[in-house]
Amino acid sequence: MNADEYIRSRMGVIEKEMYANIPAEPKEVYGMLGEFISRGGKRIRPVLVLASCSACGGKEESALPFAVAIELFHNFTLIHDDIEDASPMRRGKPTIHTQYGIPIAINSGDALYSIVWNALVRKVEPQKLRGGGIIMIDAFRRVAEGQGIELNWYRENRFDVGEKEYLRMAGGKTAALIGASCELGAYSAGAGKEEQAALKGFGEKIGLAFQIKDDVLNLTADPAKYRKKIGEDIDEGKRSLITIHLIANTPESVRKKVVALLGKKKKSAKDIGDAIALAKEYGSIKYASDYAERLVREAKASLGALGKAEGRELMQSLGDYIVERER
Amino acid sequence: MNADEYIRSRMGVIEKEMYANIPAEPKEVYGMLGEFISRGGKRIRPVLVLASCSACGGKEESALPFAVAIELFHNFTLIHDDIEDASPMRRGKPTIHTQYGIPIAINSGDALYSIVWNALVRKVEPQKLRGGGIIMIDAFRRVAEGQGIELNWYRENRFDVGEKEYLRMAGGKTAALIGASCELGAYSAGAGKEEQAALKGFGEKIGLAFQIKDDVLNLTADPAKYRKKIGEDIDEGKRSLITIHLIANTPESVRKKVVALLGKKKKSAKDIGDAIALAKEYGSIKYASDYAERLVREAKASLGALGKAEGRELMQSLGDYIVERER
Repeated sequence: MNADEYIRSRMGVIEKEMYANIPAEPKEVYGMLGEFISRGGKRIRPVLVLASCSACGGKEESALPFAVAIELFHNFTLIHDDIEDASPMRRGKPTIHTQYGIPIAINSGDALYSIVWNALVRKVEPQKLRGGGIIMIDAFRRVAEGQGIELNWYRENRFDVGEKEYLRMAGGKTAALIGASCELGAYSAGAGKEEQAALKGFGEKIGLAFQIKDDVLNLTADPAKYRKKIGEDIDEGKRSLITIHLIANTPESVRKKVVALLGKKKKSAKDIGDAIALAKEYGSIKYASDYAERLVREAKASLGALGKAEGRELMQSLGDYIVERER
Repeated sequence: MNADEYIRSRMGVIEKEMYANIPAEPKEVYGMLGEFISRGGKRIRPVLVLASCSACGGKEESALPFAVAIELFHNFTLIHDDIEDASPMRRGKPTIHTQYGIPIAINSGDALYSIVWNALVRKVEPQKLRGGGIIMIDAFRRVAEGQGIELNWYRENRFDVGEKEYLRMAGGKTAALIGASCELGAYSAGAGKEEQAALKGFGEKIGLAFQIKDDVLNLTADPAKYRKKIGEDIDEGKRSLITIHLIANTPESVRKKVVALLGKKKKSAKDIGDAIALAKEYGSIKYASDYAERLVREAKASLGALGKAEGRELMQSLGDYIVERER
């Protein structure tokens, strides 16, 4: 089964279990969460949990509570990130804080994070709760750490971010949760430490590639296929592997221009176009794109330890899916 | 041992374990959390966990991770509540969002909530993780539900809140966590279902009394002893048992005056003084005060099921402490 087919085949069971975890009452707290979840999303994280479990010969029932908890956690972070980034839209609709105001959006996010733990403590097999809980919480902490590091760059108006610092940030904010998804699949299947570590490593690599690819797409996607605004990241002054490469690998005069441009509060369409043109000219987009592809190649190669060819191929196909998408 | 002595005797172990749970790095995420915790607080919740455990003949080591997790959770809610209520000060210092901005404050609160679960999954005895986790998460959910209900009153500018609705809100926002504190103490001691239920009931009653007493103090405290501004709740248009009684038990003309006054965006010192005077005149403060005292009486009487006299007396003394405080 290839990635597309597998994703389609697991969507129903994931969606159903996600909704089953959202309480009906009080409506003023949970109603908006049901609506938020119904907006969809790639569901790549729970798919990776189930695929990893299956690749390690486990049963889907063991992995499902972890899969759903991870996707609900991801949705919780979106609600809070949207406040933190002042984003007006999410998945084609106004963000929760745009609809209900910041106080209610913060609280509903918190309620969703509690729903995550409710799913875990109630639905995970008791003998897997501690081990699985530790994998979960280590990832959840790294997500907040990555987000905190990035928010601090904005607060301090810092553009002198090095590649290592960037990788620590994105490694927490994005890769940790995808790494945990694959690790939990293996853990819930009862796989050995070595297989768990291999899948965690695979997940972190494709997770990082996913983020880098996201940043590349934001500057280069086909506007007809892309759901966000091209160049939005430049508009927000976002630090990415692209901007870091651009700042580190250009003559002093260009560097100054780029930093001034990214630091502007209000950017014109020309500013954004100029930044994208410079990123192309100095090879920064290619650098990031190659970086992501290398990560996926390494991730795929690292699955040598994984038992059956069938499972390995599914995971590798999912790895490809992540960098080959067009939106 | 009376309440004061007991609280003093347990403070060291609670504080030490709280700090032990806050990671050192990255500083930009966790530094402010260590500082926030160092501002102190009554620590009434962890004290109740330890006291309940001891009253049920348990060992403190079993109860300590729950005690600390509950207090860290409480601190997390303060960080987010302060954003939601736009409060400038907390424990004599600027609130986290006043110091670092709303984005970082939201994220640091989230990081603290993750620290709560880190403490639980790593430090609770594995065989108590599921049972204790369920007690925890049920309380955490009710806290967010109570907060959500209250935020919605503000958003809809509703003053026609009934006593039953108020009790549901405060029962979640404040009483649930104090009920869980006592229940977890019993649970960690290995007490039977009946004792656990008795302590939960005791905790919820004194928790509700605690909130009502808080609201009474806000209007009647001795300014020399009180740390907040007298009448601040009126200024914020807060719905309390006092304002609900005042609106429900006064002639139409007074009711209208009170609703108009509470609904004002900007209130003068005279407005606040007028509201307090009306609450006194129509017996609303006495009503709330009596209500809180009745709850504590009932809570204390309900501990008949509890084994040893010594433990029972400590719990009863802690119940009294909650309504007898002056700030």
